[in-house]
Amino acid sequence: MARVVIIGIGHGVFGRRSDATVQELAFEAFRAAIEDAGIERDLIDASVIGSVPEYHKQRSLSGVVQEYLGLNPKPVWLTEVACASGSAAIRTAWMSIKAGVHKVVAVVGCQKMTELTTPEILALMGRVGEVQWESIFGTTFPAYYAMFAQRHMHEFGTTHEQMLQVAVKNHHYGSMNPCALFQKEITMEKALASELVATPFNVYDCCANADGAACVILADEATAKKLSKKTVWLDGMGAATASMSVLRRPDLVGLPSAQEAARVAYAMAGVKADDINVAEVHDCFTIAEIMAYEDLGFCKRGEGGKFIEERRTYIGGKVAVNVDGGLKSKGHPIGSTGVSMTVEIAKQLRGEAGERQVPGAGVGLTHNVGGIGQYTFVQVLRRE
Amino acid sequence: MARVVIIGIGHGVFGRRSDATVQELAFEAFRAAIEDAGIERDLIDASVIGSVPEYHKQRSLSGVVQEYLGLNPKPVWLTEVACASGSAAIRTAWMSIKAGVHKVVAVVGCQKMTELTTPEILALMGRVGEVQWESIFGTTFPAYYAMFAQRHMHEFGTTHEQMLQVAVKNHHYGSMNPCALFQKEITMEKALASELVATPFNVYDCCANADGAACVILADEATAKKLSKKTVWLDGMGAATASMSVLRRPDLVGLPSAQEAARVAYAMAGVKADDINVAEVHDCFTIAEIMAYEDLGFCKRGEGGKFIEERRTYIGGKVAVNVDGGLKSKGHPIGSTGVSMTVEIAKQLRGEAGERQVPGAGVGLTHNVGGIGQYTFVQVLRRE
Repeated sequence: MARVVIIGIGHGVFGRRSDATVQELAFEAFRAAIEDAGIERDLIDASVIGSVPEYHKQRSLSGVVQEYLGLNPKPVWLTEVACASGSAAIRTAWMSIKAGVHKVVAVVGCQKMTELTTPEILALMGRVGEVQWESIFGTTFPAYYAMFAQRHMHEFGTTHEQMLQVAVKNHHYGSMNPCALFQKEITMEKALASELVATPFNVYDCCANADGAACVILADEATAKKLSKKTVWLDGMGAATASMSVLRRPDLVGLPSAQEAARVAYAMAGVKADDINVAEVHDCFTIAEIMAYEDLGFCKRGEGGKFIEERRTYIGGKVAVNVDGGLKSKGHPIGSTGVSMTVEIAKQLRGEAGERQVPGAGVGLTHNVGGIGQYTFVQVLRRE
Repeated sequence: MARVVIIGIGHGVFGRRSDATVQELAFEAFRAAIEDAGIERDLIDASVIGSVPEYHKQRSLSGVVQEYLGLNPKPVWLTEVACASGSAAIRTAWMSIKAGVHKVVAVVGCQKMTELTTPEILALMGRVGEVQWESIFGTTFPAYYAMFAQRHMHEFGTTHEQMLQVAVKNHHYGSMNPCALFQKEITMEKALASELVATPFNVYDCCANADGAACVILADEATAKKLSKKTVWLDGMGAATASMSVLRRPDLVGLPSAQEAARVAYAMAGVKADDINVAEVHDCFTIAEIMAYEDLGFCKRGEGGKFIEERRTYIGGKVAVNVDGGLKSKGHPIGSTGVSMTVEIAKQLRGEAGERQVPGAGVGLTHNVGGIGQYTFVQVLRRE
């Protein structure tokens, strides 16, 4: 099948962006991406918005964004699959190009998390689990992932300190990322001493909400070769689901949707886990990154704790993971996160990541999870 | 390019469905569609949900629906473009098949409009316009379309009675549709006497919210020929946008997005407006159907009022429009409406519409508008 190429990337600053509306955030990333691609806006055939619309006061969000980007009368659509909305947007854009329906498509992940009041946000976040049978028992986001953590500790002897080593690593790299929400190192002592959220998690086990946007411009191979020299190939696109209800999962120490999405993406791209040089994984909580190591096959099942303890996911280790700071340090504007991951991997494969560059990175991966693992999207990207 | 085929259709009852959750509504339509297609659920490679998620208490809606349909671990994604969400879902499914990524895809439009309280619904509906510059001045849904109506009356001499003739026609056909919310005829006298909403609209100029779901199963040509004899061809897929802000539109007597989407769809399918035998158009308000006649080229600009007055859109007229009752009589579960339109056209092209069958229908069309025309999706479907 025809290959799809990333020809432009753009990334706004993540944080409390009271200076900008959501459409302005979208434009910030979009403008950077078309400038990066070196193309005029009228070359774009369609756009796809990755966002979770209920966090905004504006209804019909993609209509406002499309007008603000100056892309009327071209088509737009919005995809929503919770925190994986950005990757779903990329996947549908990728399909539209493979189908020959469009040649150049802009994908914009954009999200404001701070338009609503804290009680409104909590009400939305509180209903992220299965409402009919689970949410009523208090299964909030941290509670679900704390259950996964407890079970991982019980089955494999994983320690809370190993989990917090993920946070220490991600803050280390986030301190070098000018787009990150928290651009500061943390120590293990500080992380261990932070306030309890849900046993075993402290504050430093959890990522933070943020406002922000990211954009990638995709094109078909022939068009890409005409337009740009800065090409990155989107070769493996895995997507899979698991039951929303965790009661119906085979176990709580990994995400079946991630395992299946990785299998599909690796097969499509013709690579193995060992081939991946750099990865962005969905570290909404520290245990999530440890489970991702295992679900993606970077290490064996149960060995994720040891894997971070031995610094195998630092630059210079087996596979560099979340060297832009991850959700933990960069912040998590939910609809934008998947696109942000793809931007970082493209930057790494182009060798443009500056002081956090993974030397010689040729094959990269993104792993973007929706909610509590009801969806996972895995992309395999190549430099050549 | 490879053709995409509708191999199964299912439609639930639209109305106040306090008997069912949104996932149960989705299942009702999905089950009917796979039974209609005569296939087993495990043949389905992916599903796409058309819905406006903020109307539900459940977050991450497509995760819950996917589990309830029994489709894990297959991929799912949800598309949201206001009242055109269902057609956007079909369009992305169509692209996934044309791309060769999936062979058989289920598209489910599902929406509960009655889970939230009336004030909550009004707050959502009240923000359907551009929030920053327009909504603050009271531009609700009926107010926008009333402006379009006033302008149409001013420019072309269209009358309110002509508008209400749309309602009379659609209730006439809706009375024969067992899935419709209002299965009853109305008279012009009754319509004229109904309560004022926004000049010139009375209650009978406006469609009503409803709960409900509809489903289509799409497949590539080779798979379709193996699986099913009840095939309908999805040959023209137009999608276009216009500015969200009506201040920035060229005029208020038509929808530029609809004109452009129709142009694209006709060109792709190789047909003209005159070739269409049966159409489903987005009659959220009576004037919207009259503008649709003109935007789609069924009659000349400014002649839509006369077109319905002369009963040219009844069965036996030039083109039969909304012979399932339209949004007006069938009800408008916003994310489901586009899929419902496609189900009706497929039924007509298969010759299975019973007493409201359009004789010899060979080419059909759907016209699904998001919000106040910021998006329109137009499909051209063929029997052969």
